[in-house]
This record gives sequence, structure tokens and C-alpha cells, in this order.
Amino acid sequence: MSEAAVTLEGWYCLHDFRTMDWAAWKTLTSDQRELAIREFMTFLEKWENTEAQNAGSHALYSIVGQKADFMMMLLRPTMEELNEIENAFNKTMFAQYTIPAHSYVSVVELSTYNPVNEAGEMDPMIKARLFPELPKWNHVCFYPMDKRREGNDNWYMLPMEERKKMMYSHGMIGRSYAGKVKQIITGSVGFDDWEWGVTLFANDVLQFKKLVYEMRFDEVSARYGEFGSFYVGNILLRDKVPAFLSV
Amino acid sequence: MSEAAVTLEGWYCLHDFRTMDWAAWKTLTSDQRELAIREFMTFLEKWENTEAQNAGSHALYSIVGQKADFMMMLLRPTMEELNEIENAFNKTMFAQYTIPAHSYVSVVELSTYNPVNEAGEMDPMIKARLFPELPKWNHVCFYPMDKRREGNDNWYMLPMEERKKMMYSHGMIGRSYAGKVKQIITGSVGFDDWEWGVTLFANDVLQFKKLVYEMRFDEVSARYGEFGSFYVGNILLRDKVPAFLSV
Amino acid sequence: MSEAAVTLEGWYCLHDFRTMDWAAWKTLTSDQRELAIREFMTFLEKWENTEAQNAGSHALYSIVGQKADFMMMLLRPTMEELNEIENAFNKTMFAQYTIPAHSYVSVVELSTYNPVNEAGEMDPMIKARLFPELPKWNHVCFYPMDKRREGNDNWYMLPMEERKKMMYSHGMIGRSYAGKVKQIITGSVGFDDWEWGVTLFANDVLQFKKLVYEMRFDEVSARYGEFGSFYVGNILLRDKVPAFLSV
Amino acid sequence: MSEAAVTLEGWYCLHDFRTMDWAAWKTLTSDQRELAIREFMTFLEKWENTEAQNAGSHALYSIVGQKADFMMMLLRPTMEELNEIENAFNKTMFAQYTIPAHSYVSVVELSTYNPVNEAGEMDPMIKARLFPELPKWNHVCFYPMDKRREGNDNWYMLPMEERKKMMYSHGMIGRSYAGKVKQIITGSVGFDDWEWGVTLFANDVLQFKKLVYEMRFDEVSARYGEFGSFYVGNILLRDKVPAFLSV
Amino acid sequence: MSEAAVTLEGWYCLHDFRTMDWAAWKTLTSDQRELAIREFMTFLEKWENTEAQNAGSHALYSIVGQKADFMMMLLRPTMEELNEIENAFNKTMFAQYTIPAHSYVSVVELSTYNPVNEAGEMDPMIKARLFPELPKWNHVCFYPMDKRREGNDNWYMLPMEERKKMMYSHGMIGRSYAGKVKQIITGSVGFDDWEWGVTLFANDVLQFKKLVYEMRFDEVSARYGEFGSFYVGNILLRDKVPAFLSV
Repeated sequence: MSEAAVTLEGWYCLHDFRTMDWAAWKTLTSDQRELAIREFMTFLEKWENTEAQNAGSHALYSIVGQKADFMMMLLRPTMEELNEIENAFNKTMFAQYTIPAHSYVSVVELSTYNPVNEAGEMDPMIKARLFPELPKWNHVCFYPMDKRREGNDNWYMLPMEERKKMMYSHGMIGRSYAGKVKQIITGSVGFDDWEWGVTLFANDVLQFKKLVYEMRFDEVSARYGEFGSFYVGNILLRDKVPAFLSV
Repeated sequence: MSEAAVTLEGWYCLHDFRTMDWAAWKTLTSDQRELAIREFMTFLEKWENTEAQNAGSHALYSIVGQKADFMMMLLRPTMEELNEIENAFNKTMFAQYTIPAHSYVSVVELSTYNPVNEAGEMDPMIKARLFPELPKWNHVCFYPMDKRREGNDNWYMLPMEERKKMMYSHGMIGRSYAGKVKQIITGSVGFDDWEWGVTLFANDVLQFKKLVYEMRFDEVSARYGEFGSFYVGNILLRDKVPAFLSV
Repeated sequence: MSEAAVTLEGWYCLHDFRTMDWAAWKTLTSDQRELAIREFMTFLEKWENTEAQNAGSHALYSIVGQKADFMMMLLRPTMEELNEIENAFNKTMFAQYTIPAHSYVSVVELSTYNPVNEAGEMDPMIKARLFPELPKWNHVCFYPMDKRREGNDNWYMLPMEERKKMMYSHGMIGRSYAGKVKQIITGSVGFDDWEWGVTLFANDVLQFKKLVYEMRFDEVSARYGEFGSFYVGNILLRDKVPAFLSV
Repeated sequence: MSEAAVTLEGWYCLHDFRTMDWAAWKTLTSDQRELAIREFMTFLEKWENTEAQNAGSHALYSIVGQKADFMMMLLRPTMEELNEIENAFNKTMFAQYTIPAHSYVSVVELSTYNPVNEAGEMDPMIKARLFPELPKWNHVCFYPMDKRREGNDNWYMLPMEERKKMMYSHGMIGRSYAGKVKQIITGSVGFDDWEWGVTLFANDVLQFKKLVYEMRFDEVSARYGEFGSFYVGNILLRDKVPAFLSV
Repeated sequence: MSEAAVTLEGWYCLHDFRTMDWAAWKTLTSDQRELAIREFMTFLEKWENTEAQNAGSHALYSIVGQKADFMMMLLRPTMEELNEIENAFNKTMFAQYTIPAHSYVSVVELSTYNPVNEAGEMDPMIKARLFPELPKWNHVCFYPMDKRREGNDNWYMLPMEERKKMMYSHGMIGRSYAGKVKQIITGSVGFDDWEWGVTLFANDVLQFKKLVYEMRFDEVSARYGEFGSFYVGNILLRDKVPAFLSV
């Protein structure tokens, strides 16, 4: 048996994608719609308070194309809190006018493939990465991924040293995008259908394509990467929500 | 032909995942909703009586993410009883406000890959594992799996000795999580679309990820494991049901 | 080109799986429901007459889990008759309260892999197998399957002798379940999405699992079997139909 | 690069599969239904006129099983005409009571794998095959297919001579069914999700199974064939349409 | 690690496929329908203005078969503009009578596999290809594709030189269709589920089939191409829209 990578985990994470039911939304009176928007805004304000207290973080982005209209990404200390937020949202009047489009359950993860503090202590930089405040950058990109286990391309049968070397070189590509792309890796083994979720943030949306394409030529992705659906979106600030929902 | 593993079977098992139709649920008067909740609670009470009489067991968990809102897991002595419970539930007023999200039909299984009583008698520990009372732990994780039959990675073409050795080492990982994760294996060959269902219980949800990830580096999973969708959830005790359904 | 197996065909076969629309069903008055049940019962009586005249056969089973609520399996001398029955059923008031869940079109098949009368005559045993009266046993199991054509595991590239030898050993497993499991093989090449449908009947539902699992270690299944969805159910006798549909 | 086969193309082809919405259909008054049927019959009459003028051809078959209730197959000189017919049909009152179940867009194709007139002229037999009048035989079978491109089984990497030899032997099987099965090959590269559509006609439905099964042992299918869903049906003559739709 | 191809990017691109909800559309009064059509026409006029100012481009095609009724293809300088157009369209009365059928998010891309200006300057020809005015040709063909990463057929593990040589030969086929087929390649790595979208325009629809089929025998496609769904359509000029929507 190959040695398993040691992982550190931080906040639990829910990506919640929704499509607006515009036809139903338009049957409401503008008073009713305002009420529903107000309800949603209250959620956002509450989430911002949580973020201000470093007790979690969140992001709200509109999604391009028919896969969804918007995505809420939530980070919280426990799985129970994610579930509570999700259920509370589902019970709102606003949620009735949204259609679940996709969701993803995971937990912020760092792995020892990446060099860490030798003493094993959780230094502040690691803490910041496990309990991150999500950046308010212009664009988001989300996709899930697996490491391949297929014939001669079986990641989980490789010796630790080989995996480490490849992950290091892989990480180097990521680092060359520092300042341009911020990446949050969340682990979902045992929680959802893929092994990891990757959430990227950028102010220049083209950097997602540049980064993911460059990485694809790296052996870790070329031989061992399996990718799910990609979602790309634009930031939806709270004060833009009424306009986004105005019909 | 390779020698087939001998298996012991216990209670039949139905995993029943449901999504709430919150919009429709909210159109009911609070009296009607209370009636429907009462109806569901009566089912739960009846199931608890069955469990108290060691004539079956069950679990109720809310599910995180859009795959489902809650899961009922039922263990009963016969396939007919599972069918009766399912049909009775489907005819309730409450069920009208739920949408079937996924189900899985199987039977509790022990295999002789795991060392058993040499005399072949069913000792009390084995009996307890075939007819288990499901733990009331905080979290559940469910996923179905197959053993791979693909090119050089064909589990069913391996000699018994090799399979036994691998399963033993695999079991050792499981054992190292004793007290942290409780695992119920149910066999579904001939009953549903995968060969096994795995249901894990834990008080610390992170242990699901730790266990499944560690196992993935073990040859049995790395080369021979095929996995379906993963569902993760939080316990939903009977007395929390009204709050869970309150709108 | 490998020599194709010679096949004998009997009655055409339709497996028709339906889910009850319980919510809509409950909106009917009990008089309307009784009328609809009566309509369905009349179909069943007619099918029983056909069976009594050896002009076809049928089976009705409730299905466990969310895949369907019940399955009608129909054997008739022509494809046209299957189509007529299906269309007639679809036009009933009862059918309006059912939702098509799955169907499978095939024809009862015997292949010369199995030893037949050397003279090539259709002896009575073969006739009985091509035009079978479906047993009224407690349980049913249905699944479709293909023979694999993938890399080195390509059934259709094997010489006849090799296939024959493997099928013989495969048949021996089946035979060891005589009296416990009755198996109807229907061929669907050119008719539906898989090459064969397998319908098993048993009084002890566990025998499905035992048989299919044991076979999976046999080279024919281990290397060459591809399996679709499995459906398992309990017999639904005509006089139990009103109770099954009572709400 | 391997030499591409030269192809000849004839009429464009639309296979349009529909499911009846029987429940909605039954809500109409019998006058309304008669009107809708009349509307559909007018389409059929118009299509028959087109066929009589050798300006196209069509076929109407009821489909067995839940995949669809009927299929309209249309051959026309241009893609625009297919689109016009489809849109005109979709705007009818009758179409409102049908649910799109599947469609396939292609063009009648002959390939030079099959020996053609050496002079390269379009002799009458070839013309008849490119612009065929669809037979009014009892049964239809439709399925799409690809040539495999996978590891060592890559059709498109084979030299022309090898492909030609295999296609010749394949064609010989087809020919042995002359008079029993009529086959229309339509190419769909660039038009739809598979590379070809195969439409078979027969008076004896069993011949579909015999032909497709025999071919599966031929190397072209065994190693290089990938098959989609199979649809099988019975002829639905215009004067039987009112009975087919009568409720 | 293999050297990644350098790419140049131009306008962002949204392919938006819609199915008409004809049944609902017909419930409108003709005044209401006219209003909705007018609304859609206003969008088209606005898009034409954008195109006239070289600030974007678009195409409108009706789609053959059940996959969709029409496709809007939009090119714009930013991802935000695509999102705004999409949301504005979704809020129209007209959109309520359309059902999202498929969408694709990408960006116009040129790669250095194709010879470019050695000085690295963006010469006018390249600029025209990155910010193209979509041709108003009779037909459109859209499909997404990946480069394969599978066993020995792993594009991303090949050395740059080998990829370049294959892409060159591939490009030569494309060039031989100059004047007959115009091709727009859009990159979607990091944006959508495939790596590229291919949009072809032709006045003779048969040229799509000829081109794609010929290319399939080229090693780049034969060994390394993975293709998604194909959509084919006919141009829908603005002044034909009212007739297209007239019921």
C-alpha cells in the first residue's frame, strides 16, 4: 500500500448553484418581489457579519451560461452550520423562485505534498489558508476533480516520493499565477462525488484559462487528472443584487 | 473460475433519500402541516418500537447539499417488509410533499474474507453485525461501490488467496478507525445497480474523509474500487423533526 | 469472423415498469379510484385468460425502491400484440396515474451454446422454454446485460469453441440453483439497448444475490459481462392489487 | 493520415420520435381530438404527395416500449425542408399533445467501401439508393453507431485496404438478408451525435435480431462498432392513425 | 512537463440554445405574441448595432431536430457583457416561452500551433480572426471537443514538436475547405466542460460532413479527438423571425 498524503482541514464548504425561475418571479407583484429580495439581502448581511467575526466566509457570483444563474459559496466551521444555512435558505420565499442547479460539499484542505512548517505547528499562514476569507475578486471558476486510477495511470498506486515531486512541480505553476489567481482547494472524499473541488478567483477572467490550460500539460493533470463540469461567473456584490433580480 | 467468497446475510436494507418540495409544503395551512408531520412522527415511533423489539432498525439523517434533504435507512427481516414500509410511506400526506431523490436496495452482508468463527457457528458478535442496531451518531456517509473488472484490474479473476490478503489489509485500515467510524456493509448484487452499499457513521464528520482517503491508497481501492455518488448528512432526531419541517 | 451462435426464439417480451403518481391518485374520489382499479383488473383477467390458453404469459410484481412501483412483464407471440397491449394500457384511466419508469423489449431466446436435441427438432422441453408460463414465485429480479467488446476482453472475437466451453461452465452454476431460481433469458439485439434481458424468479429473494454473485467470479461474467440496472420485486397477485392501490 | 473513404450523399433525413401525452389528449373533447387528428392526417397526405412526386419519402411507425409512441422518418432534398416540416409540425394542435422523445439528423449515404460503378457515373441503382422510397414494410429498427477509436481498436487509423476488406465482408452479411431486411444508412458526422444512423425495415421483426447479432461477430462490429439506443416499431399506416389515437 | 501551446484570445463567446415552448406560446393572444416578438427583435437590432460598431458580433440560426429550436451565438469583449445580455434576455417576456436547451461559454482562440507573425505583433489578419464578424452563411454546425488523455493516446504528454506537426497537417485539411467552410475556434478550458468549441459556417450544409469526416482520419482526430454533441442549423435572418414564430 502506498503511503497516504497527510492532510489538514479547515472550514467546511458548500457550493450552492441556483437557476432563477424568471417566469414565476415575474408573476409576483413588485411588493412581493421586494419582500423576497429583502429576505435574501438579510441572509447576505448575516453572512457578512459572520465573515467580519472570522467565523466563516462566503462568496456570491452570477454564473455565465445556462448551468446556473448564481452561486453561493459558504465556508463554516461545521457541517451542521452548512446544513442549517441551506435549509433556512430553502424555506425562504426567495428560494421558491430559484431552482437547485448543482451543489458541492467539501472541506478546505491543505496537503503535506505542499511544504509545511517542519515543527508541525499550525503557523499563521497555514491557518489563514485553512480558514480563508474568500477574496472579492471579479471572477470565479469552480470545478471538481479526481486523481485517475486507470490501467498504468493510477495515482494511488504511485510511491509517495513520485507523487510529491509531481505535486511540487504542479504547485510551481500555480505559484507563477500568484496575485493573478487565488486558489482554494477543498477536499470532498467521503462527502461528495469527486475527490476535490477547485475554486479559483481572478480579476482577469482569462487567467483561469491560462492557468488551467498550462497545468493540463503538466504530468499530474495530463496523466492523472479527471475533471468534472466547469462553472465560471462574475462577482455579484450585495448592493447589485436588487438590480440583478429586477424584472 | 475463481472461488467465490462465501457471504453471510442479515437484515434487508432500504436507503430512501427524499427532497422536500418546500414550495408546495408552504401552501399548506399550519394545521395541515402539523397533521402531515404528526403522520410522519407516527411512522418514526412505529419504527422505534420495531427497533426496541430487535425486529429491525432505522436511521434518519438530514443530507447536506442539493442531492436530497433527508435520508431514511431501514433494516428489516424481509424484502416484503421494506416494500410495505415504502408503499405505506408513499401513501401518506407527508410523502406528497417529498420528491424521491435516490434509493438503494441491499442486505446486510459479512464475507468470509473477514476471519470468522472457525466452527462456522453464528457467534453473538456476528449476529450483532448481521442484525445491527444502527448507531445514533452525529453523521452518516453513504456510497455504493463495485469491484473493478477492467483489463488487468479485474478483481473477479484474482485467486481467492490474493483477494483475501488484500481484504485483510483493507480491513486493518477500517479497524484503526474503531470507535471513530462504524461501518455497515450491505450487499446489493442482484438487488441494485452496484455490488455493495457502504454506510458509515461517525460523531466527527471529518473521520469519513480520513478513512475513505486513507483506504484509497490501499490496493483494493486504488486498483479495484469503483465508487458511486457520496451522500453525507447530520442526524435528525425524532424530536427535531418538527423544527426541521417548520416553515 | 467468429462463428455466430445459433439462437432459437419464442415469445416476444415487454418489461414495463411504472411509478404510481400517488399525489394525483389521491385527488380522485374513491369511486373514481375503484373504477380505475376495476379497469386494471380487467386487463389482468384478460391476460390470465390468454395465459390459460397458452397464448402468452405475464407477471406482475411490485418493485422495491424508487426505481418503480410495479412491473408488468408480458410475453406474446408477436411484437404487434405487445404494442397493442401497451397502447391499450396507456389509454386507460388507471395509466394516467402511473409514470413510465423503464421498459425493455426483447424475445425469449435459447442459444446453441446450451446443449440441444441433436436432431434439431424442437422437443417439448425446448418448446416449454421458448413459450414459458412465467412462474408465480415470490420474487423477481430483472437486469439487462451485454457481452463485453473491450481491448483484450472481446467476447465476439473469441472462437466458438472457447465461448461454448465458458457458457457451459456458466450454465452449470445456473443449474446448481435449479428449483431455487428460474431464469428466463430474452434476447434484445436489434430491439433494445442491451443484448439480453435476464429475468429471475425465486421464492427466496436471497438466491438472486447468491446466484449473481457466484456467477460474477466465472470468467464469462468476470471478463465479459457488462450489466445494466437491477430491479428487484415482490409478487403482486391480482387479488392484492386493490390493497396495493388503496390510499 | 489514413485515406478517408469517399462518400456519396442523397436526401437529408430526420428521424423524429414522439411520446403521446395521453392524459392531456384525453382532456380534449372528441371534436377537438378529431380536429387534431385531421391536422396530422393532412400532413401525412402532403408527405405522400411529395413521395408520389419523388421529391422525398417518409415512414410512420409506432414504437414498442416506453422510449416513444411513434416515429416519423422524413427524407427531403435539403436541410431547410426538414427544418420547415419539423417547425410546421411543432406548431400544430396535434403536436401539443406529443412530447419530443428523440430525434436524429443525417443524410442518406453510400460509401466507396461498397463497390460502385467504376466510371464514377451515378447509375440508376445508386440513384435509387441515395434517393430511396422508404419501404412500407411491417417493422422498423433504428440505431445510431460510431466506428471505435480506442487503444488498439482505432478504425480511423487503419489503412484503407484493411477497412475496405472488412467492410466488404460486413456487406456480405447484409446481402445474405436481401429481401428480408432493407437497410438505409444515413451519415451524421457533423450533423448529430453519432457518425451514422442505421434504419432497417423488415416484414419479419425477428430478422432485425438475426442480422444485427450475426454482424456483431464480424470484426467490423466486434472490434470497431459502438452502438447507441435501439428503437423497434410496427408500421402505422395512415388509415390506422385515427384508431391509434382513439381514446 | 510538455511545453504548453501559447494561445491568443479575442472576444468572449456564448452559444445559447433554446427550445420554443410552443404550447404556452399559443396560449398568448396574437397581440401579446407580437409584443414578445417585437421585444426579441429589439434585442437583435441592438446586437446588429454592436456588430456595426465592431464591438462584438452575433449569429442566429434555427436548429434542426429536437435538441433545440434556435441558437444565439454572441461575441463580446468581456465575460460581463455576455452575462448581462443573457440575463437581460432571460427577463424578457419572449424568453418565458423558450426553454434553455444548452449553452457554451468560451473565448475566441488562436494557438501558436498555427504559424503567426514572427515578430509577435498582432497583424490585421490575426486581429480579424480574434475579433471576427460572424458570417451570415446559410448553415451553422457547433460541437465541443477535447484532446484525449487516455493510456497511450495522451495529447498532453506529447512533445511540442509532435503536436505542432500534427496540428499543421490538420490545419491543411481545414485550409482545403477555404471558401466553403469558415471555422471559429473558441477555447473553453476553465470556462466550460470541454476544452474547445468549434463553430463552422457553410453555405452548403454537406461541407460540414465532408470536412469533419475527412478530419476524423487525421491522427489528431483519430487518436486524440473526443467530441461532444453536434448541433446543425439554418440561418434565421432577423426579418424571418416573425414568420419563424408565427403560429
